[in-house]
Amino acid sequence: MKIAVDAMGGDHAPEVVVKGVQAARDQWPDLEFMLFGDLAKVKPLITDETRIELIQSDSVILNEDEPVKAVRQKKDSSMVMAAQAVKNGEAEALFSLGNTGALLATGIFVIGRIKGIERPALMPTLPTVNPGHVVNLLDAGANAESKASYLEQWAIMGTIYARDIRNITNPRVALLNNGTEFDKGDPLHKEVYQRLEANEAINFVGNIEANSLLLDQADVIVSDGFTGNAVLKATEGMSSLLLKQIKQALLNNGLGVKLGAAMIKPALGDIKNRFSTSGNGGAVLLGVKAPVIKTHGGSHEDAIISTIGQIREMLAKKTIHQVIDYLKENPIK
Amino acid sequence: MKIAVDAMGGDHAPEVVVKGVQAARDQWPDLEFMLFGDLAKVKPLITDETRIELIQSDSVILNEDEPVKAVRQKKDSSMVMAAQAVKNGEAEALFSLGNTGALLATGIFVIGRIKGIERPALMPTLPTVNPGHVVNLLDAGANAESKASYLEQWAIMGTIYARDIRNITNPRVALLNNGTEFDKGDPLHKEVYQRLEANEAINFVGNIEANSLLLDQADVIVSDGFTGNAVLKATEGMSSLLLKQIKQALLNNGLGVKLGAAMIKPALGDIKNRFSTSGNGGAVLLGVKAPVIKTHGGSHEDAIISTIGQIREMLAKKTIHQVIDYLKENPIK
Repeated sequence: MKIAVDAMGGDHAPEVVVKGVQAARDQWPDLEFMLFGDLAKVKPLITDETRIELIQSDSVILNEDEPVKAVRQKKDSSMVMAAQAVKNGEAEALFSLGNTGALLATGIFVIGRIKGIERPALMPTLPTVNPGHVVNLLDAGANAESKASYLEQWAIMGTIYARDIRNITNPRVALLNNGTEFDKGDPLHKEVYQRLEANEAINFVGNIEANSLLLDQADVIVSDGFTGNAVLKATEGMSSLLLKQIKQALLNNGLGVKLGAAMIKPALGDIKNRFSTSGNGGAVLLGVKAPVIKTHGGSHEDAIISTIGQIREMLAKKTIHQVIDYLKENPIK
Repeated sequence: MKIAVDAMGGDHAPEVVVKGVQAARDQWPDLEFMLFGDLAKVKPLITDETRIELIQSDSVILNEDEPVKAVRQKKDSSMVMAAQAVKNGEAEALFSLGNTGALLATGIFVIGRIKGIERPALMPTLPTVNPGHVVNLLDAGANAESKASYLEQWAIMGTIYARDIRNITNPRVALLNNGTEFDKGDPLHKEVYQRLEANEAINFVGNIEANSLLLDQADVIVSDGFTGNAVLKATEGMSSLLLKQIKQALLNNGLGVKLGAAMIKPALGDIKNRFSTSGNGGAVLLGVKAPVIKTHGGSHEDAIISTIGQIREMLAKKTIHQVIDYLKENPIK
């Protein structure tokens, strides 16, 4: 199993990427890597080249670059070259910590859509109120506009992923909507409800509202891309805001509170880790012909290793092939 | 200034409603009230009938009632009768803690839309990262489907409200979108961006993403009703989940943590109060011919008093008349 890695993406690139790749290589003897980057910077960071192929790339797609334009113009970038290696069959999956929009565009334009998937979707894995239980949300923002057929296709992909990678026999699928009753929402969401209920391959548990996103009421939540994006950002924003406010309050409230804060630090740290954005693997661009996975730009080594483990699972379980095979037999229009 | 109050809505009705109304009456000598409810229950709670007229209503719209149906069928309910009093000119504003959907339907069908407002919007006032600064979000869920002209009308109403009631000279208006650049979003949001930028009565500061909702980057945030609803619920859901998890962690982590928790309690309590849903007044149904305000069903006396104060401000400043006058001169199609 060979993974093409964009070594130049992310806040701490290439250092943390190279470190994470080497650690993952040591952990999983069945993994090989192609590492794309500025070799003048990357090579000195490599302590052992075993199962790591180094390929020079001359440019980098930055976070502030306009995604589609950057992918078209920076063909010599680490991200586009890594995608090209997947397209050419030299590698089987693409991993980057870089510009999310550009990675989506690279996945779609360079690697290409699965036949029968009209639009790929971005799918993060989120923590829930129950430790050890997570939830997949898709689409979390690959699409500003969504049609009912897209959401039905996403529900199938989410089901296959949760079954194979998370080992859930019959994953519960819910639809993110503005109420729980069956007739809630605009015409799009009403139609999606009917489709999910009618599709026997989907264990549809009904509508879910955004305040129940992380309450472990579903294993997979499908959403139009615009709302999914907004809800994910609102959740992350509120979490980050509250934790910062609490930290500030604990620092600015006199000695007694400071002392108390020191005593509760381990308990709070645990919550912070669980609800941090990087703790649960990367976001998968589901619907393209190979695993394309993005992890948070600020990720540290641990998050990189766990995301590579996630890619390895997807390759070992042939998740993408299962989607391809399913849609060949059961096209969704 | 006379306010029609639905005494039977909310989790602690009619006790807490009657208490709040009496306290508000004592606080503001220029306020009068019409109190609609089951007088067998309401009357014993009244200690002083000064400026409070009691009117018997024979039914109650429950939280689990289907809103539009309930409003049509329960014409003798406290909520619909209170709305009818506003329509007849006996009272100038409607206040309820009951079923939000039913209150929206009552406002629209009984009291009626302002000429030039195609669809009324629900507008809560939310806390921000800066104590004392708040933000108005509209539409937070009165509409499952939105058109560009609605959002422009909402931006005008939000501007007038923030100027008159919050005393902000030139309120910053942002559009909730899936990116900050001007060309982000689906066709609806792109068109709204152009409209808000072109309208000289609106101090448009551009797009805002959901993770910046509470960062005090705008005074008024306009959103399509579907996304606004989802983002509000996601924010509330995450806040409630995190605070509960923290409370649990502090209780279940041994004596040291428990002791620390006791020491930090005042600091945490302050944050909890600031980010609670009921601390910043009620949600206004803006776009109907009178102030229609809903506050959280679980509200206590303080929240009821402050919401009545908010209604009083809207009546004193003639906020609704200003909207009517503005749209007469400057229709938005």
